[in-house]
Amino acid sequence: MPALAWKRLGDFLRETQLLGSIQNTLYWDQNTTMPPLASSWRGEQLSLVAKLIHARQSSEELYDLILIAKNEMLEANNLGELDPNELVERSRNIELLEQDIARQKSLDPALIVELAKAKADGYSLWQEAKKDSNFNHFAPALRKLIALRKEQSNQLDEPRSCWETLAQPFEPDLTKAYLENLFLPLRKNLPELLEKTFVIKGGCKDPWDLDELAQKNLCDLLLKNWGRNPAKTALGRSPHPFSITLGPQDFRLTTRVVPGQPLSCFLASAHEWGHSLYEQGLPSQTHQWFAWPLGQATSMALHESQSLFWENRVARSLAFSERFWTNFVEAGAPLQNSFDLWHALNPLKPGLNRVEADEVSYGFHILIRTDLEIALLEQGLEVEALPNEWNKRYSDLLGVTPMNDAEGCLQDVHWSEGQFGYFPSYLLGHLISAQFAEAMSRDLGDIEIAGNDPISTCISKGKESLLLDWLRKKVHPFGRQMNAEGLVRKVTGKSLSSTPFLNYLGDKLEKLNTFK
Amino acid sequence: MPALAWKRLGDFLRETQLLGSIQNTLYWDQNTTMPPLASSWRGEQLSLVAKLIHARQSSEELYDLILIAKNEMLEANNLGELDPNELVERSRNIELLEQDIARQKSLDPALIVELAKAKADGYSLWQEAKKDSNFNHFAPALRKLIALRKEQSNQLDEPRSCWETLAQPFEPDLTKAYLENLFLPLRKNLPELLEKTFVIKGGCKDPWDLDELAQKNLCDLLLKNWGRNPAKTALGRSPHPFSITLGPQDFRLTTRVVPGQPLSCFLASAHEWGHSLYEQGLPSQTHQWFAWPLGQATSMALHESQSLFWENRVARSLAFSERFWTNFVEAGAPLQNSFDLWHALNPLKPGLNRVEADEVSYGFHILIRTDLEIALLEQGLEVEALPNEWNKRYSDLLGVTPMNDAEGCLQDVHWSEGQFGYFPSYLLGHLISAQFAEAMSRDLGDIEIAGNDPISTCISKGKESLLLDWLRKKVHPFGRQMNAEGLVRKVTGKSLSSTPFLNYLGDKLEKLNTFK
Repeated sequence: MPALAWKRLGDFLRETQLLGSIQNTLYWDQNTTMPPLASSWRGEQLSLVAKLIHARQSSEELYDLILIAKNEMLEANNLGELDPNELVERSRNIELLEQDIARQKSLDPALIVELAKAKADGYSLWQEAKKDSNFNHFAPALRKLIALRKEQSNQLDEPRSCWETLAQPFEPDLTKAYLENLFLPLRKNLPELLEKTFVIKGGCKDPWDLDELAQKNLCDLLLKNWGRNPAKTALGRSPHPFSITLGPQDFRLTTRVVPGQPLSCFLASAHEWGHSLYEQGLPSQTHQWFAWPLGQATSMALHESQSLFWENRVARSLAFSERFWTNFVEAGAPLQNSFDLWHALNPLKPGLNRVEADEVSYGFHILIRTDLEIALLEQGLEVEALPNEWNKRYSDLLGVTPMNDAEGCLQDVHWSEGQFGYFPSYLLGHLISAQFAEAMSRDLGDIEIAGNDPISTCISKGKESLLLDWLRKKVHPFGRQMNAEGLVRKVTGKSLSSTPFLNYLGDKLEKLNTFK
Repeated sequence: MPALAWKRLGDFLRETQLLGSIQNTLYWDQNTTMPPLASSWRGEQLSLVAKLIHARQSSEELYDLILIAKNEMLEANNLGELDPNELVERSRNIELLEQDIARQKSLDPALIVELAKAKADGYSLWQEAKKDSNFNHFAPALRKLIALRKEQSNQLDEPRSCWETLAQPFEPDLTKAYLENLFLPLRKNLPELLEKTFVIKGGCKDPWDLDELAQKNLCDLLLKNWGRNPAKTALGRSPHPFSITLGPQDFRLTTRVVPGQPLSCFLASAHEWGHSLYEQGLPSQTHQWFAWPLGQATSMALHESQSLFWENRVARSLAFSERFWTNFVEAGAPLQNSFDLWHALNPLKPGLNRVEADEVSYGFHILIRTDLEIALLEQGLEVEALPNEWNKRYSDLLGVTPMNDAEGCLQDVHWSEGQFGYFPSYLLGHLISAQFAEAMSRDLGDIEIAGNDPISTCISKGKESLLLDWLRKKVHPFGRQMNAEGLVRKVTGKSLSSTPFLNYLGDKLEKLNTFK
């Protein structure tokens, strides 16, 4: 079929993508290499690129290109010149582009400017407030951000509640009702699982650590085992580990070394590598799709499911400890056996900090935040009441009470930039990872390896490549063809539920109580 | 004075500068971190940014902004509202901007596209030809580049010869007559100095090396001694060392470790730090000048004079070896005394390679290239005759003959991208550095430190900061206010000549023969 308009649209998207990847390069450098005094100029560089990208994404030119390409596609289809699969893919690309540009165009440019300023102010005031551990310094900025986000939701005018509208960029099609239903079993069953963690004993009694070089070598060994190709991946160090894609063949990840936490660097590498593998497996990044919506990650929850799979299901598994513990011993870790490593990789203790939370208590952190942000946006919770509400819920659910606001409601960065609707993605990622693992076990059990737990068997034999093959085939190559819920149904044959995750936790706690 | 147009022009230049610094960030990452398979996408990113910059630099908008700002300036001056110093600075900025945009606008856009393609092709064919050591593979591309550069010179239509026109971006106002006159004493006297190098003996007989970490630590120590502020400088590693500025407070430099050459990394750090110090000392980079012509380096020769000063006049001096040799011993170097280090830092042996050449034979490499490129562009030397001409001159002047084209006329990258007129800057840098050092000695001798050689005295006492203070005051802060020759006259009271350089070399050879 003639596809001139399609190609022109593709060229336009490709240039936008080039700018986006330049933005990512600036971000990478900022977090891995840039000297501190350079930050204000870097801020100006980033603003300029953001301005260029926004101008393209909301331009009449793009609007027209989409329209013409759509007509060209429909015409070709009428003439029978379009392969049915191609029609499906193209239609979906057009649908997503139309949705994205409609959102961009529905917003008053004045609001966009105001929001950008409120985010910058909010972030800066939050940093100060956190340093001084004083929520009052941040409260006015948060109030402003909430007002602007509500206005944004009004302008978007979608058939959804305010909070749901704001959650769309992270989790397409998410609703509160869906989430409530999905999280209900967690609200019911997590407290009991939490009780069980209190009796678990095991692992080294004395604190231990590893030197930086030893930690780096263990990370390198891990990624080598997990198929890292250095020709298209680069590693760095940053205060907060992250994974980022700078081009179709350019994947980066960072880790960090935390004194006194000898496994932090290793687990961060496993986690970020999971994110990177998803990006590496997105559809046909070497050809044109890299610039099209279909080439992109479908949701934050799905992204998180991939990082959590490699961190929790693989690196924190007993099978992995059995295989890897001697490497840790050689690196200088005082481990008597593989159980010691396993317990060290799975400390279970409810705490105040979401990022450091274990698999059992993690859910509480998310439930608290999700409830609170819905309350702030939709149920009239006053900003000044936030610290008390936060502290009360932590005491009630986790039995721990923040000493101050820095440990409490100032802990996370998200609200400081007015990001509402993001937190559930983290917990959804846990659920999706568990449900995928169930399906993977079923599939692998039939084909390659006999035994009750095919994933563990693969890990024991150093055959993680079989796990990756499965993800590469079943999960990664669909991009935004469907949303996260749709992909879960496609992969597992069922709607997403909490059951696999709760089952997994129950089993793990039992094992942790048994093997020590 | 009201300066609305001036501010608008400044804002425009600032945005161009932001894009330029983004380009530099992409380049930095490409050479320090980027995985190899990412190179084609990075090429597209760089092309896009280059396109955006070129569009701005040759735009009607810029043209108009310059015109309006100039009129505003003249009017303010007529009304007596402009400080005389401010008038001088502003006029010079306007003059340079007019010159730059006139050049951009005088070129046919078709030629710019053809040149970009010819450069890319030339670079790629040169790489292959060098790998296979076969000049014939590169010859057609070079012929094409010469033809296009001649056409470029025609279109620029300056009152200069072709080669001179092409040399302007590197050395403003350079002429062949000036160069001939300046280099004549070198042509006469270098052969005799070269003879003298053959009898110099000294230093360790056995080859030695240092491990990577030891080399890194020595470089860190050097830069710490020389006042590096880590809050605005970052270090990296790359195959070819370089220094680059990414923002008003963001300076980067790289070095490399070469097995079997334990001082390569150290001297590269000294050299690149010299470049960086010049950039760090350019006028008022923290305010608006960063985006204006006056804030920029005045020429490549001046840049090179700064790197060579720190590499050759400081790091390769006897005084420096006396102070630093124990650090090398502690790092594992088998040095009996400071003379051993000094001789190791000053190996004198004519070779085929420009980059590895010593201070005495370096001049020959440049004289040969300069003569040949003028012959190619203006005197009818045929491209196919280049290898023979090259080899003949090396035999005649340096007594060494390339075994093949890779060692010979394919050695440097410059011609592969059609860069003609660049090579003299390297040698001019040696001359300027020597003439500056003479003036510095005079000034420092009067003020701070008694003795015959104040620079050595400063180095002995670890007071290199006094040398830097002098450069900071006399050399760095003028940017493009005057060209290199003008700055030399301003700083030293004399026109640039070869005498200080030849005197310096003569003294050094005598000392190297004496102290061993």
